[in-house]
Amino acid sequence: MDTTTLDLCKAAKAASTQIAALTTDEKNKALDAMASYLLDATDTILKANAEDVEAARGKITDVMIDRLSLSEARIEGMADGIRQLIDLPDPAGKVERTIVRPNGIKIQKTRTPLGVVAIIYESRPNVTSDAASLAFKSGNACVLRGGKESYRTSRAVVDALQAALKSCGITEDAVNLVSDLTHDSADVIMQAVGYVDLLIPRGGAGLIRHVTANAKVPCIQTGSGICHVYVDESADLDKAVNIVNNAKTQRPSVCNAEEVLLVHKDVAEKFLPMLKKVLVDGRKAAGETPVELRLCPRAAKIIDGKPAGPDDFDTEYNDYILSIKIVDSVDEAIEHIGLHSTHHSEAIVTETEENAKKFTTLVDSAAVYVNVSTRFTDGGEFGLGCEMGISTQKLHARGPMGLEELTTYKYVILGDGQIRN
Amino acid sequence: MDTTTLDLCKAAKAASTQIAALTTDEKNKALDAMASYLLDATDTILKANAEDVEAARGKITDVMIDRLSLSEARIEGMADGIRQLIDLPDPAGKVERTIVRPNGIKIQKTRTPLGVVAIIYESRPNVTSDAASLAFKSGNACVLRGGKESYRTSRAVVDALQAALKSCGITEDAVNLVSDLTHDSADVIMQAVGYVDLLIPRGGAGLIRHVTANAKVPCIQTGSGICHVYVDESADLDKAVNIVNNAKTQRPSVCNAEEVLLVHKDVAEKFLPMLKKVLVDGRKAAGETPVELRLCPRAAKIIDGKPAGPDDFDTEYNDYILSIKIVDSVDEAIEHIGLHSTHHSEAIVTETEENAKKFTTLVDSAAVYVNVSTRFTDGGEFGLGCEMGISTQKLHARGPMGLEELTTYKYVILGDGQIRN
Repeated sequence: MDTTTLDLCKAAKAASTQIAALTTDEKNKALDAMASYLLDATDTILKANAEDVEAARGKITDVMIDRLSLSEARIEGMADGIRQLIDLPDPAGKVERTIVRPNGIKIQKTRTPLGVVAIIYESRPNVTSDAASLAFKSGNACVLRGGKESYRTSRAVVDALQAALKSCGITEDAVNLVSDLTHDSADVIMQAVGYVDLLIPRGGAGLIRHVTANAKVPCIQTGSGICHVYVDESADLDKAVNIVNNAKTQRPSVCNAEEVLLVHKDVAEKFLPMLKKVLVDGRKAAGETPVELRLCPRAAKIIDGKPAGPDDFDTEYNDYILSIKIVDSVDEAIEHIGLHSTHHSEAIVTETEENAKKFTTLVDSAAVYVNVSTRFTDGGEFGLGCEMGISTQKLHARGPMGLEELTTYKYVILGDGQIRN
Repeated sequence: MDTTTLDLCKAAKAASTQIAALTTDEKNKALDAMASYLLDATDTILKANAEDVEAARGKITDVMIDRLSLSEARIEGMADGIRQLIDLPDPAGKVERTIVRPNGIKIQKTRTPLGVVAIIYESRPNVTSDAASLAFKSGNACVLRGGKESYRTSRAVVDALQAALKSCGITEDAVNLVSDLTHDSADVIMQAVGYVDLLIPRGGAGLIRHVTANAKVPCIQTGSGICHVYVDESADLDKAVNIVNNAKTQRPSVCNAEEVLLVHKDVAEKFLPMLKKVLVDGRKAAGETPVELRLCPRAAKIIDGKPAGPDDFDTEYNDYILSIKIVDSVDEAIEHIGLHSTHHSEAIVTETEENAKKFTTLVDSAAVYVNVSTRFTDGGEFGLGCEMGISTQKLHARGPMGLEELTTYKYVILGDGQIRN
């Protein structure tokens, strides 16, 4: 039993009452301080990050090293993410609806913080400040359990945030970083019934499966993204090349990157060579990593590539790999997505309104795009501020989880002695 | 493996696409038909119900027999419940929010049906029509697995509803009643990943514990209610007697009935004898079942009753039993509730605004009342139409689950070739 981690959860629960009682103004002042303290700590954070990166090199892929690496610009981005929260409306305490009944009772549907939000995540250190500040603005205390590769960085970030809270007279227990990086600490959090009100796993499919299968506390499935782009028979093929290229290569390590391309049979012969020219030949010529294409038998007759194996349409590579399948119709594309998607983000490229409508209605994913890259599924890109993760489940929250998704509500009913007849 | 039940889940999933595509007007016409067919089948339903009641007599408590029993008036109530849904707004398809970003992409947060809603419930047959009509109006297909005691009644109700759907050209698979009443069928539903989008257990604590601990499909914890009324030192004691009497005796078999009374020490000496006069002496004199009082040691010095045992403050009796504890302050009352409540409904009786505010802020339950009986926690009483259950969890839905709580949302994003920089 890892008492240290459980103690952190208990401390967070105890702190949650104080955090829930803060006014919006008090929270915004503290967020401003958090951003300033974070920027002031840039040198310390970069030093810690360099140690993390050095220690991880050779043990994780280059793509993972990219996720782990901070720069001055990325720290500025983290501070900006915190500052953006200041201008966003505070969901906590908001009376969403008031119902006055004929008997005079007044029912107020009132948004309230969840209490304690825990996040178990992998190597991206910007999650540390995003998660802490989002939990805080929505009135929650938090417990952060990052990956061991990024621990030094996260510790430096949390030190800065806690110093900022302290400078505002707020308990440091509002933000808790777990120092035990064995599996034990994750298990303790997953079992901390009564102390953790919501657990969000952020990371690869393995982590998310493990957490959702074993957690005894309420939990939200996030992030794992086998995202599809379907190029319809009526697609503008230049747009399609741009969108597929962007969705695949702009940042392949993230969950909203494309993993699978579906192409209508009637445009495949023209489209696939155009695409290969950009994803493979063009990138090679520019000295960039070319995309490895894994092709269904019909696509393999049109362009060169590796034959797609049985798992290639069910794997999130987070890498420069794209599986390609030719389909006979928009219906077959929708059916394929229904069977293989993780319900994160899918796009159709089409000039036919009817097919666009069919696709957006029948594809059962958090974000469904028409003629737009899947890379926009992101709280910031949606204008919702930074996010706690992308929910791929249907209950409670779907897509980017911002401030409101970190709250619940209660009904407060005021009366003067009313009884039920 | 109970293939019949799994087949029903699959049939519901297949039907869910048709149901999701119905217009509000088509759904409302079908609801009107459902209410009419139900009323037309009154004789058949009452006959089936009489058989159920006859078979159950002696095997379940009188209170449970009351839950099982239908009358012409109760069937009219069921039909009214269906008809009330016609006037309620249809949540499905509603664009809740539109965001246009600087790059021109248009993001529409669009409410959509969940797909298939399954309900595992115990003996109350009105749940059959409530659940089927709520699922239908919100655009979902449903799988109903009622208690074996009420099977004949539920079958007659579902026959009427399916005939109504058929008369409107809608697939009968929109409403499915499980005929296997062994535990196997419940297990099949709990494991039906990919076919059941939401499982709601309605019934006693044992059923709910079993389902939430074992379900692999998304599930909502409902109903179990250890509800408290706290009589503050400043309470109007006549109001308090009325409220406690109503919360305890108006219908003790339901989840929002009071189980535990907390009384401030400074009013206990005056209040408890007033209360006993009504709950015990008055009811005896009127030939009604008196309430059995289970008293903490301090209360036992003031009035007669049974001493409260160790489990009496943690048990939902659903019967004419009331556990009573004297507390020193509103804070002690709040703390007791935090430790023993099921987070369903709690009330304070007070004339002090500060204590009312403290109670509503710090009591972490779905419904928190000031000077009102807990018996109002109910979709109909809240003006939300009939309900699918009372959620006692914090995620997704809290309190009465009406139409909107049976839907999710997706983001539909429309553009013209936008890619991310």
